[in-house]
Amino acid sequence: MTSLSYQTKPAPHGTANICLGCWDQMHIPIPIRGPLALPFRAFGITRSKMNPNICTICERSFRYVKKQRHIAADATILFADIRGFTVLAERMGVVELSEIVSIFHDRCAQAIWAHDGIVNKQMGDGLMAIFNFPIKIRDHSSAAIMAARDIQQRCAAALDSLEFDLDGLPGGALGVGIGIHTGEVEIGEFSSFRSDFTAIGGAVNLAARLESQAAAGEILVSAEAAAKAPVLVADTEVRRLSLKGIEQPVMAQVLIKM
Amino acid sequence: MTSLSYQTKPAPHGTANICLGCWDQMHIPIPIRGPLALPFRAFGITRSKMNPNICTICERSFRYVKKQRHIAADATILFADIRGFTVLAERMGVVELSEIVSIFHDRCAQAIWAHDGIVNKQMGDGLMAIFNFPIKIRDHSSAAIMAARDIQQRCAAALDSLEFDLDGLPGGALGVGIGIHTGEVEIGEFSSFRSDFTAIGGAVNLAARLESQAAAGEILVSAEAAAKAPVLVADTEVRRLSLKGIEQPVMAQVLIKM
Repeated sequence: MTSLSYQTKPAPHGTANICLGCWDQMHIPIPIRGPLALPFRAFGITRSKMNPNICTICERSFRYVKKQRHIAADATILFADIRGFTVLAERMGVVELSEIVSIFHDRCAQAIWAHDGIVNKQMGDGLMAIFNFPIKIRDHSSAAIMAARDIQQRCAAALDSLEFDLDGLPGGALGVGIGIHTGEVEIGEFSSFRSDFTAIGGAVNLAARLESQAAAGEILVSAEAAAKAPVLVADTEVRRLSLKGIEQPVMAQVLIKM
Repeated sequence: MTSLSYQTKPAPHGTANICLGCWDQMHIPIPIRGPLALPFRAFGITRSKMNPNICTICERSFRYVKKQRHIAADATILFADIRGFTVLAERMGVVELSEIVSIFHDRCAQAIWAHDGIVNKQMGDGLMAIFNFPIKIRDHSSAAIMAARDIQQRCAAALDSLEFDLDGLPGGALGVGIGIHTGEVEIGEFSSFRSDFTAIGGAVNLAARLESQAAAGEILVSAEAAAKAPVLVADTEVRRLSLKGIEQPVMAQVLIKM
């Protein structure tokens, strides 16, 4: 049993002095660190929870940043969740469960931020990340795949050190499943009462469906994302998948945690 | 085809002058409307996006409100999503898609707020609501079931009026699926970089699994939630379900949109 005083703190990640999102989207320098950031903080403009290198203007004022309610954008979407979490939740105490969820979210965020992605949504034992908005990334498919490998490594190291009794789990393993797809998505505000942006569209759903098919330790990368990151998917298995709601079979590269 | 200038605005809901969450949890009156709310607003304390009758203290300062990182609580959890959304996303333009998502989120929020629940998480075409925290509700199972019926009615009315060509959809219907379960959940902050609270635990996962089995227009209510709201589930079908990750078959009452 692990110590309950275990605290999860994000490790230091790249630190920008101006908001990378506002710079990439509008070429406006918004200070987010150092003394120049203080007057902005007084007006409620601070670092975003989605990524500490972007600011709350990017996060909450999409219409101000893009002059539209939503835009089409080329992006890579990553979904991750804890495999077998329903089984875990049935068998494990809530304190252990909450510790696992905390570790998962913190390690995922560190990995995603290290590759300039944003943690757009968190829901229970799962999350959705966006690469290439608002921080522009030339090769966002590769950034997402590298972040995914990083998630697998960080989560495995942290979860292994917990030493919970996992004998009752299917496969005996506590692990993370990840799905990645690159394509055109619609980014913007889709709720009149929440102002944080998100992404929707067929490409988002495909990434979510891939994640739902990934076993513990697996990263399923769609053919479209893989084609843009050939070096990272070289010599990996190709799997043919039937995904709910998608008529044609989908081919995905399977990256497995070493 | 519907007009693209269609705007979704939440209808007026019950309006409290003090935060109902801070009052129910701490017996502290925090003004959220009227002139007394102005000085609070200057310090960033305003109405929450989760429910406009609670404030950002409840939303973001769980540790201040409860003096702990997380607590066990008896609550009712409601999951809702748009059935066949992956198929829709494959076949529909993003503008129509974003309109459907906006309508869904706005109508759901109106229904949930009308019964004192909170919209805790929104993710693409789905959401999770909590009843009995932070606003206390004596009969939270009934409140959630009434909110669910309200969601079905409001969404059906709004989606019907869109008149999209839905002939290609399985079943030809665009509708919402809902799952409801009552039980002990763990409520608190489970991420060191996001401060908004959420609920986790087996009871949360069961509600999510029920939702995943609900067809368009259906509300699946667990036996535990149904037992606390006998009048609302009288004369409804009982369905035996095999849910992913849950060993025993689960019995649920099936409420169908009239």
